[in-house]
Amino acid sequence: MKKKTQTFILKQPVYIISSASLAGKKEGVGPLKGYFDRIAENDTMGENTFEKAEREMFYQTASAAVRKADKKFDEIDFMLSGDLTNQIVSSSYCASAVKVPFVGIYSACATFAGTLGLASSLISGNLIDTCLCVSGSHFSTAERQYRYPLEFGNQRQTYSQWTVTGVGACVLSSIGKGVKITKVCFGKVIDFGVKDIANMGAAMAPAAMDTLCAFFNDTNTKPDDYDVIATGDLGKLGSDILIDLMKEKGFELGQNYIDCGNMVYSSMEDCMQGGSGAGCSALVFNSYFIKKLKEKRFKKMLLVSTGALMSTTTNQQGETIPCTAHLVEVNND
Amino acid sequence: MKKKTQTFILKQPVYIISSASLAGKKEGVGPLKGYFDRIAENDTMGENTFEKAEREMFYQTASAAVRKADKKFDEIDFMLSGDLTNQIVSSSYCASAVKVPFVGIYSACATFAGTLGLASSLISGNLIDTCLCVSGSHFSTAERQYRYPLEFGNQRQTYSQWTVTGVGACVLSSIGKGVKITKVCFGKVIDFGVKDIANMGAAMAPAAMDTLCAFFNDTNTKPDDYDVIATGDLGKLGSDILIDLMKEKGFELGQNYIDCGNMVYSSMEDCMQGGSGAGCSALVFNSYFIKKLKEKRFKKMLLVSTGALMSTTTNQQGETIPCTAHLVEVNND
Repeated sequence: MKKKTQTFILKQPVYIISSASLAGKKEGVGPLKGYFDRIAENDTMGENTFEKAEREMFYQTASAAVRKADKKFDEIDFMLSGDLTNQIVSSSYCASAVKVPFVGIYSACATFAGTLGLASSLISGNLIDTCLCVSGSHFSTAERQYRYPLEFGNQRQTYSQWTVTGVGACVLSSIGKGVKITKVCFGKVIDFGVKDIANMGAAMAPAAMDTLCAFFNDTNTKPDDYDVIATGDLGKLGSDILIDLMKEKGFELGQNYIDCGNMVYSSMEDCMQGGSGAGCSALVFNSYFIKKLKEKRFKKMLLVSTGALMSTTTNQQGETIPCTAHLVEVNND
Repeated sequence: MKKKTQTFILKQPVYIISSASLAGKKEGVGPLKGYFDRIAENDTMGENTFEKAEREMFYQTASAAVRKADKKFDEIDFMLSGDLTNQIVSSSYCASAVKVPFVGIYSACATFAGTLGLASSLISGNLIDTCLCVSGSHFSTAERQYRYPLEFGNQRQTYSQWTVTGVGACVLSSIGKGVKITKVCFGKVIDFGVKDIANMGAAMAPAAMDTLCAFFNDTNTKPDDYDVIATGDLGKLGSDILIDLMKEKGFELGQNYIDCGNMVYSSMEDCMQGGSGAGCSALVFNSYFIKKLKEKRFKKMLLVSTGALMSTTTNQQGETIPCTAHLVEVNND
């Protein structure tokens, strides 16, 4: 038996028939404010805990994506979702309300491309016809779970990032037209020995490099073949590291390279290296990129969501940070 | 477009070409002691934290499954794994050592059947040829993460369960003979309003019922058609509840029904309702059941891993427990 390549070339394209985005208040005043479906008035969504607020954002965004696909929940075959909360409870409680067969995914901030990759594989393999993909994060739940109590008001390192409050969701289908997923490349787990959990960009860049190189080699393509290559949340420092790493491997990331984390906040804010979180690439893809793809402003895109797979326990026990990056090729040509 | 059924009937059977099991010390003196590949001498595996011990158990079991398949890691196309630690770090650090494309799954104690379901779908859909599936848990990491510090020595409720220390792993392939997966049914998330995290059996039984009924209705089968139907970790109380719930739906679970959680400990021990955890059904399936299937003692089996999807945060915030159950049909006929 021949080993398959790391890249899955889908036998039939899988269409993104709808997408929805809900941004937090801070994200809603950033450079992408004109692209979001909805901007939350505040980060509590009228709930009494941030965790309930995050869950409500998941449900509202999932509902909007299904509604925009002109479907009801019971017309959806499958749901894949993930987030950053312990035991991915935002996704599971959302799935409890949505009531379709569901598997939770954990790839940290690489989750969104992970859901797209698995969903389009299952659709292309003719196991399901439609799948709801959801990913998101909330600054306040992530900050108090991974770092410090919000009330502590800790100082941030200059190389830190800001967890995006926002959710992106989309419905994939075997039948459609326009924007479609054509190839998928799931990442290996790469650990370059970075231990500083504030420096996620540096930890994740080697994983992004590994997946991108595997994809280009598998498909005999190069960065120039794409109108846009977007990583998930490497931030400014991480993006610079990726550009250098790719150059060493013989691939030039040029003007077509961008990072979702660098797009979501204005530079004058306190977000240091930019946005991060399972909501980062999900929010930016389901607002800005999906619009540009529909308008054929971009015809060929690679989305490479990046994730750092540590926990507070492993960090406190002095472990390094294993990272991954999942890639999907999205076309509208 | 017609909605597909909840049950996936695989176009081609997917073979379980190898399996491996590593049990903790307590599990290694239970009724199944003769079936495990390996029994750990102690629960620390020579490491200085229980978390590192759990990770080592994952790696050793994954390695054993690949070795028993007469393969090397780089001959494996894909890996799916999950566990109970926050951010499923046991799986991610194991994947970092295994170095094959990897997606982490979180379905709590339903994880093992979830990995089998996704892996066999991807193989049947011709996206990959081979997949490594891993799931496990460790009493000491789970207890201190979900409940109390081990040193506290809390009293256990009579309806509580004991998290299994153990890992099960297997390699699935498109090519093989003998034991094979032929159908898959992923669960919806079902919440019957149980809030007591000690009473997992009662919380999970309705999810097991929901998936079993969906499967029997989709495939026009009944419990009698199977030599054995094994739920993951409902425990004694949860199993009794499931039998009652199924009876109400018109399905009689008879002598062929068993629960992995009820099989793993001797009744005189302090495990109350039996075993639980992401390692429970993984360990029992990859030891006892796989042997009985190979010997054709059982020719047709349903494995229904059950999972409770809450976190300590949702519990402390007074939420109910959403649950799920994933099912795979395994044959050797």
